[in-house]
Amino acid sequence: MASEIKNGVFVHNWEWFKALSGKLGTKIVETARKIKKLGQDDPRRIIHSLKFGLALTLVSLIYYFEPLYKGFGNSAMYAVLTVIVVFEFSVGATLGRGLNRGLATLVAGALGFGAHYLASLAGEKGEPILLGLFVFLLAGVVTFVRFFPQLKARYDYGLLIFMLTFCLVSISGYREDEILEIAHQRLSTILVGCSTSVFICLFVFPVWAGDDLHNLVASNLEKLGSFLESFGVEYLKISGDSKESNNTFMDDYKSVLNSKQSEECLANFARWEPRHGQFRFRHPWKQYLKIGSLTRQCAYRIEALNGYVNSEIQIPAEFRSKIQEACTNMSLESGKALKELASAIKAMTPPSSVTPHIVKSKDAANNLKSLLRSGFCKEIDLLEVIPAVTVASLLVDVVCCTEKIAESINELASLAHFQSVEPMVEAEKPKLLHQETIPPCFGVNEPHHVITIDQLSPKLP
Amino acid sequence: MASEIKNGVFVHNWEWFKALSGKLGTKIVETARKIKKLGQDDPRRIIHSLKFGLALTLVSLIYYFEPLYKGFGNSAMYAVLTVIVVFEFSVGATLGRGLNRGLATLVAGALGFGAHYLASLAGEKGEPILLGLFVFLLAGVVTFVRFFPQLKARYDYGLLIFMLTFCLVSISGYREDEILEIAHQRLSTILVGCSTSVFICLFVFPVWAGDDLHNLVASNLEKLGSFLESFGVEYLKISGDSKESNNTFMDDYKSVLNSKQSEECLANFARWEPRHGQFRFRHPWKQYLKIGSLTRQCAYRIEALNGYVNSEIQIPAEFRSKIQEACTNMSLESGKALKELASAIKAMTPPSSVTPHIVKSKDAANNLKSLLRSGFCKEIDLLEVIPAVTVASLLVDVVCCTEKIAESINELASLAHFQSVEPMVEAEKPKLLHQETIPPCFGVNEPHHVITIDQLSPKLP
Repeated sequence: MASEIKNGVFVHNWEWFKALSGKLGTKIVETARKIKKLGQDDPRRIIHSLKFGLALTLVSLIYYFEPLYKGFGNSAMYAVLTVIVVFEFSVGATLGRGLNRGLATLVAGALGFGAHYLASLAGEKGEPILLGLFVFLLAGVVTFVRFFPQLKARYDYGLLIFMLTFCLVSISGYREDEILEIAHQRLSTILVGCSTSVFICLFVFPVWAGDDLHNLVASNLEKLGSFLESFGVEYLKISGDSKESNNTFMDDYKSVLNSKQSEECLANFARWEPRHGQFRFRHPWKQYLKIGSLTRQCAYRIEALNGYVNSEIQIPAEFRSKIQEACTNMSLESGKALKELASAIKAMTPPSSVTPHIVKSKDAANNLKSLLRSGFCKEIDLLEVIPAVTVASLLVDVVCCTEKIAESINELASLAHFQSVEPMVEAEKPKLLHQETIPPCFGVNEPHHVITIDQLSPKLP
Repeated sequence: MASEIKNGVFVHNWEWFKALSGKLGTKIVETARKIKKLGQDDPRRIIHSLKFGLALTLVSLIYYFEPLYKGFGNSAMYAVLTVIVVFEFSVGATLGRGLNRGLATLVAGALGFGAHYLASLAGEKGEPILLGLFVFLLAGVVTFVRFFPQLKARYDYGLLIFMLTFCLVSISGYREDEILEIAHQRLSTILVGCSTSVFICLFVFPVWAGDDLHNLVASNLEKLGSFLESFGVEYLKISGDSKESNNTFMDDYKSVLNSKQSEECLANFARWEPRHGQFRFRHPWKQYLKIGSLTRQCAYRIEALNGYVNSEIQIPAEFRSKIQEACTNMSLESGKALKELASAIKAMTPPSSVTPHIVKSKDAANNLKSLLRSGFCKEIDLLEVIPAVTVASLLVDVVCCTEKIAESINELASLAHFQSVEPMVEAEKPKLLHQETIPPCFGVNEPHHVITIDQLSPKLP
């Protein structure tokens, strides 16, 4: 009996243990899969992590080598700190933070000295009062200035460091006597940290925010194009079959709806970046924001269209078959146009091959109009064709949007001096596959640039 | 002659000076106006700046009072540093950063000690190598972990500080002998900095991220409601007058389109916040994100509608006048419903008064439907009425969206235990159709309708 109970308890515990370890196992497997996916989605993340480790290890050498440590002293930790806060994923972000930090430290250090000197004139009792007043005023003003959206976007980190350095210099001046010595040590370690970060970010597998913005804008256009192409095939085929095929990739366009923030971030970073690949220092990054905004306009229409993809509305077959061709053409051709525009951006060539598609889509819109005018619809029930009419009307909107996008990409092509590729390549263009094999930026053929300080430093307002 | 030239030069210089000072003057006036606007838009910004100055001045007192300074020593600067990086606009953000910083410092400090101890076992030559390896590995792993979107949203700052503290403790342990003493001092100053920030943020005119999220979601609904109300009046009046009145406030809804990011940010902050006002600690903040997402769905339709506000298309007056009433009612009633929903959220009461508006808007949709079926449109040109039909169809979509938003707000009301205010209102309730007595798609219950409202409207994703 006792052994049975024991056995039972054992079996129970064993089951419990098995269940627990099973749960733990699936959890671990799940996490491992997530980690793998994160790395596979963008292998640059793994490289970035290694680069970060490398930069930190390099900077910590200051501690291990006696002569270096003697030079920097206790301030060596500022080099470590600087690398940790300055090293970012893209070159633009790292450069922006590095320059912000360096400049802000310099200016605020000088101001802090001034404040310290002024306060010291006020005598032993007046000094802390005056210092407190300075700190209060400066902190208040800078904090308020950080609310300006334009300043926040580009100089937020600099303003923070400005405040920090001013406070540290002016306040610790009250206690430290060798304040100049310390300031000198810190500034030099900060410079060491900044330059290590920038160097590694710039020369070890650099990630360019500009490239990312360029590719993001292109891939957003491609997503809309893919949707429209399959919409032309899916929605407008004879009803009944529509439910069988469920293209999940038709939801890809949804990410375009909320792309504003990331585009603006990347554009801000990109403006700090020096010349690289086919991008000059003053590449018209703002134009990408304009294209992105027009792309979203188009995506909003597509979002409205998407509501009709899986709807169960039965449109009279007669009406459907009559407008089918025009709608399919509008959808297919504007889809093709968007895809062509995307590959033109990717290849950095003027989007000359887009025009025929836009012309065809406009022709389709005109055909639809004359069809509707021809009066064949007199016999049909208006109520029943409302969905089809709405789809047609939205497609006309999309054709309009596509044209606007094409215009803004033409503008980009002239602003950024996109070059037509050789006529050979032009001839091959109709094969879409070819364009997709073109790397986003083929800086490979370009000679390596020596980046000068002038190119690195942005013009501060 | 000479005096004339002199005069001329003087006059020229004077003009130039006047022009320059004029330019400078307008620039100054413009900046001043911007500053004033920034403060007027949200006076909490000014208060926040003053609070920030106050917190910094308080913390810097450590330097000025001899006994305090003796206790903390040189580490006093960590208190200043902590205030600067931890003090944020809202309580949630400050608490989040403070907790992240405190916890990360503790854990990483302990780990750093462990690493330092392990490395010191390896002998004089092995120590720097082992330390370098530890730093490289930890920095790489933590940097990769920071790419996980969920962790990035809430613990990014903590992970950064974790890395920072681990490096500082383990590396500087190589040089400092009194590492425990220093760590103790630093930890206590960081605690002083964190608690000062949290205290002032929490008790001096606190700004709650939860309140902001709550109000943002409500005001977004209100913006859509205002648009729909004026759309009902503007677009659908007899053509010709439409161009005279230009309501700029009709563009207010555009900010809703890109509100996702700020809503998610606020929801993240709000989750750190303790009970305040009518919000419990575990207020269902996630539900606000759901409402926000449905609101944006509605905003995308409104964006498509907006294209027709100023369009110059002439719709036949006869057709227009026939569908005018139904469209106006759909637009007005769903606008009113959205506004009622917004005020229900603001007042934190169940949105019971919304039901009649939703019922009326659905009735209007049904009216439109039977109007179209009645066949009056047999005599008109389909091409000419396309814009009107599209507007009507989009309005039906909007009615559906409104219903979904109302459902999700009902869900919020039950999750967050919204209380009805006056018993008077409660007593009136039975007169109105109770929300739950209305089936989600009421057309189904009406046997005489062959085509239901659902069939008119596409399926919302």
